[in-house]
Amino acid sequence: MSHYTLVIHGGAGTISKSDITAEQESAYLTALEEALETGFSRLRNDGTALDAVRAATVSLEDCILFNAGRGSVFGKDGSLEMDASIMDGKTLMAGAVAAVRNVRNPIELSYTIMTKSHHVMLNGKGAYEFALQQGLATEPDDYFFSQFRYEQWKEMQGTDATALDHNVQIKDKKFGTVGAVALDKHGNIAAATSTGGMTNKQFGRIGDSPIIGAGTYANNKTCAISCTGHGEPFIRAVTAYDVSCLMEYKGLSLQEAMDIVVHEKLLRIDGEGGMIGVDAKGNAAMVFNSEGMYRGMMNAKGGKEILIYK
Amino acid sequence: MSHYTLVIHGGAGTISKSDITAEQESAYLTALEEALETGFSRLRNDGTALDAVRAATVSLEDCILFNAGRGSVFGKDGSLEMDASIMDGKTLMAGAVAAVRNVRNPIELSYTIMTKSHHVMLNGKGAYEFALQQGLATEPDDYFFSQFRYEQWKEMQGTDATALDHNVQIKDKKFGTVGAVALDKHGNIAAATSTGGMTNKQFGRIGDSPIIGAGTYANNKTCAISCTGHGEPFIRAVTAYDVSCLMEYKGLSLQEAMDIVVHEKLLRIDGEGGMIGVDAKGNAAMVFNSEGMYRGMMNAKGGKEILIYK
Repeated sequence: MSHYTLVIHGGAGTISKSDITAEQESAYLTALEEALETGFSRLRNDGTALDAVRAATVSLEDCILFNAGRGSVFGKDGSLEMDASIMDGKTLMAGAVAAVRNVRNPIELSYTIMTKSHHVMLNGKGAYEFALQQGLATEPDDYFFSQFRYEQWKEMQGTDATALDHNVQIKDKKFGTVGAVALDKHGNIAAATSTGGMTNKQFGRIGDSPIIGAGTYANNKTCAISCTGHGEPFIRAVTAYDVSCLMEYKGLSLQEAMDIVVHEKLLRIDGEGGMIGVDAKGNAAMVFNSEGMYRGMMNAKGGKEILIYK
Repeated sequence: MSHYTLVIHGGAGTISKSDITAEQESAYLTALEEALETGFSRLRNDGTALDAVRAATVSLEDCILFNAGRGSVFGKDGSLEMDASIMDGKTLMAGAVAAVRNVRNPIELSYTIMTKSHHVMLNGKGAYEFALQQGLATEPDDYFFSQFRYEQWKEMQGTDATALDHNVQIKDKKFGTVGAVALDKHGNIAAATSTGGMTNKQFGRIGDSPIIGAGTYANNKTCAISCTGHGEPFIRAVTAYDVSCLMEYKGLSLQEAMDIVVHEKLLRIDGEGGMIGVDAKGNAAMVFNSEGMYRGMMNAKGGKEILIYK
């Protein structure tokens, strides 16, 4: 019997119902549903977990509401630099890109690095050149532009403040990252993560999203994990791989391992955020220690959840 | 009783005695001894493990024989881009830099990122700007230039081949990275890693050296690890943190954990290279699955080893 499952997230943070209008809430729920349906249809049609996490993540990247691909936040110099990574739990192959500009779908670039290069991680202009060489879609700066991210950047420009997708309208802190994890009919799992990083970020800051083991990890023996949160503690805690090790070496379940990492280990180092996970048995979990996390899941049993708040 | 210990490496690979002249061998042994003495004097004088790994790594970066800092390899476009990272086992704080140019000591930049910024990882021009702002030493391209690395690059230039510090004189494959791990009198441990990456590297390739969890990890509860090898498998295996997890979650010793990771897990995914490690009890280990690894260790009991071959 098949337990194919898809879980997605669109970022975590201080997202409270009182600060979001009904229109905003509805727009986010619709976008999450679209990404879920897009990815899940791949699983239903015998597609691989890799296909499903790519399709769901592309859908979230293409949506201007989320801080990844189109709608990415502005760095201190007004630039839009994006990070992403992907991992295949069957082969332990991985691809990642850091600080790339003008590539329409950084998750597709990560996948292409994994499948068409001898490398795992490329960065900056070199990564962009590789994308061009491989015929990936690129877009001018205008494509990525969103008025509300521009305004939040303008508010911080000239200061040394940074925000993790601080949303001026909602006046709160959000960790703008998108991601997906999936189990397919063949029993394979995969994970994908993509982000535009921190508003007003400077000095070429890289968070956990493009770091295999921190923001993304997948291994058929244990789990597929995609994280969202304040990147620095997630890197120091090697968050995604820690869940895998707690399962493999201590025999914990996916839910137990994710609870320990998110509610104990991350909190101990002020690591706010969350993660989504699946294992090869069809278990799925969405865990966060922040006020909310844009998230959703669908499975072969007909289960479907799309949630924002606790 | 104090068990303070320093272990260093200058890269692993197919280093065989028959291919190295007596002069070359002597030069490498002298450079390793200098780095060991420099770092160990910090430990002897009540310095911290962080001080010791910084001092030893700076010594190796400043030596033209090793592929890190001065003596770094050339990328496909003739550029010299360097990666480094450092981690403090007491606080779990970390700093890392990827693809930075013209900074004399990338390990000092990593340390400054850890101690003077809110970030863990910076890259490219932004990292260079941060180094300038913090008053770190920079050098013109000429400073980093070494004739033999230039010649090995010229041999490969115009091809798509890459080498991990392929040394034309020695005609073999070496993974040019330097690193250090230490336990101090206060019972704290730390790890540092620095590299110039792969000869003729392109597309902004980043290896494991600047990735916390892959090339570098330190935690007083378990171990401090610095890796050297073919970066891509090391990233996929989250190598350094895996040693820590095998110790913490399965109760293995440092040596047992390093043996499993280097001789079993890495080999399964064609991961050639090695690592050095210490734990908070004063155990130290140097493990590699390649022909040789430039390495050395000194401890409070008067132990001292400097080795190249198996």
